[in-house]
Amino acid sequence: MERPIFQPFGAPVEKLDTPALVVDLGIMEQNIARLHGAIGGDGQVLVRPHVSCHGCPDIARYQLDAGGSSGGVAVSSLAEAEAFAGDDAGIDDILIAGRVVTAAKIRRLVALAGRITLSVAVDDARNVADLSEAARAAGVTLGVLVDIDSGYGFGGVAPGRDAVDLARAVADAAGLSFQGIMTYEGPLPIADHAELDAETLRRLQPVLDTRSDLEQAGLEVATVSAGSTYNYDVVSQLSGITEVQAGVYPLMDAETLRVRPELQSAATVLATVISHPVAGRAVVDAGHKTTGPDFGVPVLHGFPGAVAARFSAEHGILDLDGPATEQLMPNDKVRLVPYNLALCVNQYDYIRAVQGGRLVGYWPVSGRGQLG
Amino acid sequence: MERPIFQPFGAPVEKLDTPALVVDLGIMEQNIARLHGAIGGDGQVLVRPHVSCHGCPDIARYQLDAGGSSGGVAVSSLAEAEAFAGDDAGIDDILIAGRVVTAAKIRRLVALAGRITLSVAVDDARNVADLSEAARAAGVTLGVLVDIDSGYGFGGVAPGRDAVDLARAVADAAGLSFQGIMTYEGPLPIADHAELDAETLRRLQPVLDTRSDLEQAGLEVATVSAGSTYNYDVVSQLSGITEVQAGVYPLMDAETLRVRPELQSAATVLATVISHPVAGRAVVDAGHKTTGPDFGVPVLHGFPGAVAARFSAEHGILDLDGPATEQLMPNDKVRLVPYNLALCVNQYDYIRAVQGGRLVGYWPVSGRGQLG
Repeated sequence: MERPIFQPFGAPVEKLDTPALVVDLGIMEQNIARLHGAIGGDGQVLVRPHVSCHGCPDIARYQLDAGGSSGGVAVSSLAEAEAFAGDDAGIDDILIAGRVVTAAKIRRLVALAGRITLSVAVDDARNVADLSEAARAAGVTLGVLVDIDSGYGFGGVAPGRDAVDLARAVADAAGLSFQGIMTYEGPLPIADHAELDAETLRRLQPVLDTRSDLEQAGLEVATVSAGSTYNYDVVSQLSGITEVQAGVYPLMDAETLRVRPELQSAATVLATVISHPVAGRAVVDAGHKTTGPDFGVPVLHGFPGAVAARFSAEHGILDLDGPATEQLMPNDKVRLVPYNLALCVNQYDYIRAVQGGRLVGYWPVSGRGQLG
Repeated sequence: MERPIFQPFGAPVEKLDTPALVVDLGIMEQNIARLHGAIGGDGQVLVRPHVSCHGCPDIARYQLDAGGSSGGVAVSSLAEAEAFAGDDAGIDDILIAGRVVTAAKIRRLVALAGRITLSVAVDDARNVADLSEAARAAGVTLGVLVDIDSGYGFGGVAPGRDAVDLARAVADAAGLSFQGIMTYEGPLPIADHAELDAETLRRLQPVLDTRSDLEQAGLEVATVSAGSTYNYDVVSQLSGITEVQAGVYPLMDAETLRVRPELQSAATVLATVISHPVAGRAVVDAGHKTTGPDFGVPVLHGFPGAVAARFSAEHGILDLDGPATEQLMPNDKVRLVPYNLALCVNQYDYIRAVQGGRLVGYWPVSGRGQLG
């Protein structure tokens, strides 16, 4: 486990030792207010924050306290649900958007369902049978959503007949309560909003059609959960959607900022220049293990001519040009905006919360390492 | 922190819940015996295991107990050194191959140097001055190696005159003991061994020449540390090298196995199929957060026609062809060989050690999250 260099509250951010994941509380609150305000104005559509993106119960609490919140969160795995339902986090309404299939995990799932309002997504009839048997044996009722593949291709049953058949199986199963449907449209890094809206509609129309199919089949669809930070505005306007599962918006990342400039970067990796071996190159103490650059490299800000170019496990290389060749000497600090928030945050046990440039909290990333 | 599903020792590996990082102890011991046997036969060149690759003191202990070991390890960061020197790990000879530059970290460095045999690599004269001042004030002697850039371009002073000047500064500095030089040749995924040997020589010749320069300048060079699992055989034959800093060899990964088939995969990610939504696709519960596929995707073994194709943060997609389309149903287990060991291991708090197909230990990955 990470052993952070604990510095006293009130310490200026530039005095924090590195590498450190720093969150600006003021910017985070603005982001939350902006997205919740855009979605939850009329109470027809609510925000169910997908908290795997940051893994941090302290941040989830800000999201749940904001207007337009569904009162619950979404997570990806059972272990994350356990972490967010734990005594320290205390969140009592959780949707597990991933699958829970092994016998050992299903036992943990029904145990958790006895303590909090818990629902889980399914895409397989055999899994429905296993969940039903366990819920029945444990004497609990488990909420179930049918996960529909809207084109991302990672999982989820096909829309239409397959989804209706699976929903019927859920509705008929003892111990399970059919609550509705969900989908994940996948990353949508489309900067042109007309195109983004069209692509969102193209992906969601089969899901909305399936909602109609389900209702015609006599099944009540209380929940239709879809959308993300990419497309929250258009999704929240669609008739038939009940909640938006956005996740990146409180902290943001470089990938999503290109599409959603109305939100701001609240999370940066603070790093120190540890070497400047030649004029055109500086080395920082932030590499793969610190920034999680699987999908793209983090973006350096504030030094024109300096670009974060390459990363090893522990180090990052800044290519320097023009005035930057004379800057970024050892001991200088830099900030890197992570390209993908979830993979960056998942490297840390703690977030340093900062307000007005000063340290105000160490927030545990309780979701980190909750792999199963 | 990861909360593993602790199963009793003796449990068969196929009964472990997932995702789990599993290490086969028998294969690991064979790998260690093979590499140490090839290098350390005559006692002229020793192995200094670079343990950042696995982060695990239990594995380091096997390496240090093997013939031909230098008696100490190399790490990348100060925090890793603290973890490996901790009470649970108890390793008392550590080389920090990375830089330690901030005032807060230098204070920790000299404190650690008061407890164990500690050395650190440098590539900057100002850093040498800072280290000297702190060591002198603390009343300790800190071993120092000059890090030379042999072409990888991540850090290290230029070979030749720059290196000699920096070594002279170290030798002249109070509180510091000049011990020699080190280099990191970088990843060398060159399957043709004649080419690999030639490239290794091309990179190391300037380092060996610098050794001569240093000796001509009257500086004693006790240590020349270089090499990796890629090129251990040729490096250990070079006159002037004193230790090989290999790291991946106990566990191996897909990237290195292509070059070094005489070593075997001892580390696999055990995953469960959680969905089989269409005939050509299965979904497993191992994604980026579980396998660390920044540099390349993990390799699926044992199912002809099935290929690990894409990964999201939490999930992996297997493309299925031929007979595999009828296999890999929910609840089936698969094993994935990580592409890059260090980034995979760094996702876990625990390794499951297995011998003869049965669980024999939970080994903490003490180096994980030791970012600074």
